[in-house]
Amino acid sequence: MTNYFSSDFKLGILGGGQLGKMLLTETQKFDIYTCVLDAAKDAPCANICDEFHIGSLLDFDTVYNFGKQVNTLTIEIENVNVDALEKLEKEGVNVFPNSKTIRTIQNKAKQKLFYVDHNIPAAEFSRFAYTDEIKTALKHESLSFPFVWKSAQFGYDGTGVKIIRTHNDLDTLPNVECITEKLIPFKNELAVIVARNANGDLKTYPVVEMEFHPDANQVEYVICPARLPSTITENAEITALKVAKAFKHVGLLAVELFLTENDEILVNEVAPRPHNSGHYSIEASYTNQFEQHIRAILNLPLGDTSSKVGGVMVNLVGDENYTGNVIYENMETILKMDGVTPHIYGKKITKPFRKMGHVTIVHQDLSKARKIAEKVKKTIRVISTNKTNNN
Amino acid sequence: MTNYFSSDFKLGILGGGQLGKMLLTETQKFDIYTCVLDAAKDAPCANICDEFHIGSLLDFDTVYNFGKQVNTLTIEIENVNVDALEKLEKEGVNVFPNSKTIRTIQNKAKQKLFYVDHNIPAAEFSRFAYTDEIKTALKHESLSFPFVWKSAQFGYDGTGVKIIRTHNDLDTLPNVECITEKLIPFKNELAVIVARNANGDLKTYPVVEMEFHPDANQVEYVICPARLPSTITENAEITALKVAKAFKHVGLLAVELFLTENDEILVNEVAPRPHNSGHYSIEASYTNQFEQHIRAILNLPLGDTSSKVGGVMVNLVGDENYTGNVIYENMETILKMDGVTPHIYGKKITKPFRKMGHVTIVHQDLSKARKIAEKVKKTIRVISTNKTNNN
Repeated sequence: MTNYFSSDFKLGILGGGQLGKMLLTETQKFDIYTCVLDAAKDAPCANICDEFHIGSLLDFDTVYNFGKQVNTLTIEIENVNVDALEKLEKEGVNVFPNSKTIRTIQNKAKQKLFYVDHNIPAAEFSRFAYTDEIKTALKHESLSFPFVWKSAQFGYDGTGVKIIRTHNDLDTLPNVECITEKLIPFKNELAVIVARNANGDLKTYPVVEMEFHPDANQVEYVICPARLPSTITENAEITALKVAKAFKHVGLLAVELFLTENDEILVNEVAPRPHNSGHYSIEASYTNQFEQHIRAILNLPLGDTSSKVGGVMVNLVGDENYTGNVIYENMETILKMDGVTPHIYGKKITKPFRKMGHVTIVHQDLSKARKIAEKVKKTIRVISTNKTNNN
Repeated sequence: MTNYFSSDFKLGILGGGQLGKMLLTETQKFDIYTCVLDAAKDAPCANICDEFHIGSLLDFDTVYNFGKQVNTLTIEIENVNVDALEKLEKEGVNVFPNSKTIRTIQNKAKQKLFYVDHNIPAAEFSRFAYTDEIKTALKHESLSFPFVWKSAQFGYDGTGVKIIRTHNDLDTLPNVECITEKLIPFKNELAVIVARNANGDLKTYPVVEMEFHPDANQVEYVICPARLPSTITENAEITALKVAKAFKHVGLLAVELFLTENDEILVNEVAPRPHNSGHYSIEASYTNQFEQHIRAILNLPLGDTSSKVGGVMVNLVGDENYTGNVIYENMETILKMDGVTPHIYGKKITKPFRKMGHVTIVHQDLSKARKIAEKVKKTIRVISTNKTNNN
């Protein structure tokens, strides 16, 4: 097999953001040569990889020419030129996740159809070429308020998703390809990260609970393990494994799930890469999700996904009233708390709700970790020197 | 206070080897801007810091000019130009550890006198301007075989230290400033890492046991926590704290200790930086030694030094029969074992007994970790394509 640890092997990563940065911690540990492509010259990965290439992830030639230089290519963001990946695969580059999977996941309508085809439980949906067509469906009563509207093309962190309760809500939406989903009354949002290597070895991380910020539609706390009965978590794991097998996925697959009021598990959406819901693993797990992704795409044996300690993760998002050069207020106060580890992504400019970092809180007793997490959340603020008026 | 996490703050590191590399993992996590100086253009840190400067750590002007560009300067190796550090301190650069401490530690005779002055228990010693003078001492019977000879000036990993049993042994030594030490019959070698910040906050890591390779005089296993009665480990901690206080040390201080056959604790030597005996902490501790060193030198609150799980560390040293481009044989076999994490330092060329990496083995049950560590040690080999004859 390839001697990744001491040879001419080159790993390419599309995207140089925070996920790329945390992947690089692991490639450094294993001394794997890395090339990163990102459009921003000051991306978090810029100074910490072997080769940093500046260019658009959506441009065919840029992605193709970058990919031709490496042996194995992976992503830290799905929003990339898939035609280039397809051509690279044909020419012998190992692309994980593969182009077909990324193409399916990029388009929410295709992703939903995939679940239907593979008998994977998900919320009922309708597909529309343009948002305008929803009005016709409402008129003919094949659709009724309230429902969830989602842009079919790739959105990020809450953009491109909206709960629609009235005709007025509908008028605020862009006129694009979209889906509507039945509004599911759910008790909990869960996630399961599945790792699969080319040999087909499969491992799942423990089921985590996700708590969302009510306004920003971003994860506020991730709690591992989920404090739920094993009948439910086992069902969540089985569902996540079914999704990973259906994709014949190689790498990590983060499967976001709803736990309905009737204790049904429904797939919400998936990400074919390390995921915010697995950041806790750096401090809490025997093998963290970034190392596991590297192991999976290099077809190495998968590591132990169980936890040493309980873990809670808090996202550090920009305060809604500040835009400008970032300041992390009260960092020292949280560093005094036991089991607290901040991760600062290195983005220079904060904006309302921008993901700037995260903090992991670990403790033998998960309920104590959860309490400390609340203190962390109340203490640290991501602000800037200039306060902005949000008009 | 300084806003390390989002400002113009620059941290300088003298030395770009494996310890610097593991420090950079932590500065990346905290998004601290780093400048590294090393003589080797392909040093492990070369591609993973913000600024990499090539130059000699022993040259006054090189170290001074490098240090003038940073706010805080630290080291990953003691063998640096101390006069330059002294001048930088006078001009307002924060140098941790300070020049006085490094000067004392660099010279083993000065280090031993420091222990005498501060009433710190250490092996009895004699001081010689030249090795030749030892013969006179033997003649006058103020010294007798066997004894330990140590070059006074800084040596590395077993070079500069030799057990002398006969006149013949003595003739193989260089004629340099040196000390001789009473040969202590010891049961165990222990180490305690102490962290101290400028505020004077102090924390100790658990006492670890070190097992040495019989031929290479390099640590083979580090076991945390040491499997010794608390009366002994408490005594070891008290001694280590006394040393750190005596130096008014800022940063990490690794204190290597002998446990004598009479259960006495004697200081062997110290390293004013992260240390091989603390590598286990990356996987096993709540706050690893590298993060702790950064916290200490930036005068941040110190983190929790206790362990999540038991840890054993195995050094990956070059096989004695190989010199050349490195190959890590059977890496996949050890990756299959639970709780095993290899760290590859990124040195291209292996040599007999060269430190090329380390492997940490963690387990809730320390005795199981120790067993897996033995399997790791027997399985992995650091070799190269060309076998050399060691003549």
